[in-house]
Amino acid sequence: MSEALLERLDRLESRVDIEALASNYCHGFDKRDEALFMSIWSDDCIWNIGPPFGSFEGSAGVHHALIDILWPAWGISQHVTSNLVVNFIDNDHATSRCDVDCTGTLADSREATFVGATYSDVLERRDGAWKIKQRDVVIHYFNSFSGTNLSAPS
Amino acid sequence: MSEALLERLDRLESRVDIEALASNYCHGFDKRDEALFMSIWSDDCIWNIGPPFGSFEGSAGVHHALIDILWPAWGISQHVTSNLVVNFIDNDHATSRCDVDCTGTLADSREATFVGATYSDVLERRDGAWKIKQRDVVIHYFNSFSGTNLSAPS
Amino acid sequence: MSEALLERLDRLESRVDIEALASNYCHGFDKRDEALFMSIWSDDCIWNIGPPFGSFEGSAGVHHALIDILWPAWGISQHVTSNLVVNFIDNDHATSRCDVDCTGTLADSREATFVGATYSDVLERRDGAWKIKQRDVVIHYFNSFSGTNLSAPS
Repeated sequence: MSEALLERLDRLESRVDIEALASNYCHGFDKRDEALFMSIWSDDCIWNIGPPFGSFEGSAGVHHALIDILWPAWGISQHVTSNLVVNFIDNDHATSRCDVDCTGTLADSREATFVGATYSDVLERRDGAWKIKQRDVVIHYFNSFSGTNLSAPS
Repeated sequence: MSEALLERLDRLESRVDIEALASNYCHGFDKRDEALFMSIWSDDCIWNIGPPFGSFEGSAGVHHALIDILWPAWGISQHVTSNLVVNFIDNDHATSRCDVDCTGTLADSREATFVGATYSDVLERRDGAWKIKQRDVVIHYFNSFSGTNLSAPS
Repeated sequence: MSEALLERLDRLESRVDIEALASNYCHGFDKRDEALFMSIWSDDCIWNIGPPFGSFEGSAGVHHALIDILWPAWGISQHVTSNLVVNFIDNDHATSRCDVDCTGTLADSREATFVGATYSDVLERRDGAWKIKQRDVVIHYFNSFSGTNLSAPS
């Protein structure tokens, strides 16, 4: 197989791997799977969540945001990723953009809360594994609906 | 082309086919396309929906749940699948996980109803076709919002 | 590499390109990126939105709908595409179906508005680029929730 064809095959596999990063961000966060959530980030990553949460650097920063700020802020959370478009710079570097709807409850409330956001990512493959090197978040809306309630069926 | 490269190409095609199962579950259910919905399941499947619906076995069980329980329970339904991650065990066996948001109305109401759930699937390819052998559902929330209304524009 | 294998590889790449059309429809519309939105359509396209918006033909028609009708009608909008299934007719022609949830605000209101719809597309590759030749829209619900509010965090 020619080098060019191998590169095309590799590119398609990279697309699947990058999509899995975006998906496992949600699975890790929402199912409170700390190891899975941490596995998607490079050691030297930057996570710019923006208002009202701020910016976090490196594995330690991401871990701090997750454990000390975000998980305590949420009760139920369900992130739904969509519209992933990946742009490859070369075989080991890419940028991507996706949208996310998050539905859930804040920790001190049962009211349904809806968040819509866009994630712009910088991705890098090192030692054969794609990781998120930078995620910039723009939150379009973040609101709770009074008089509503979210809960699991019993 | 080497055996290893053929396997990589086949794996990518299988990923597309498995994603189509998750998508056609939604298209079949929401557009009330019975043949499409039934086509995604293996004959000996298990569908563990859990509370408040229960567990259903085989094509007959799935058909019963669809026709006698679920379609009558819903008016409008719109399932949105996201975050699909597939893990291959071998070329013909895989597991997967995805999240789903469902927005709609219950049969006896016009109120907007929101469901968030996770589907964990066991998948198998037989005679060249991937099918869902087992789907385990965890429902994170299932609530109607009083004072709301869902309807199509006229 | 045999012709048949090249065709399989090309098919997988086409699937990625067609998914990007569906995604960039949302990115273009929601981020108000006119060039991106216009880039997904063939010159001789048809966009059948149906009630309450109507039907639009060609680049000029799509541009008119976007600039004069739809963007002015919306404040915030966040489209989430899901359940894309692509059926190839040949290497350069395909049809597809996907679902979309749109959450946002109408231009004259801060109330949360929810739309659920299905897009059925006709796709064609010309000069190496996939484009949408026809998009038929079916809107399942389109409703604002009184007493709610959508806004970005400050």
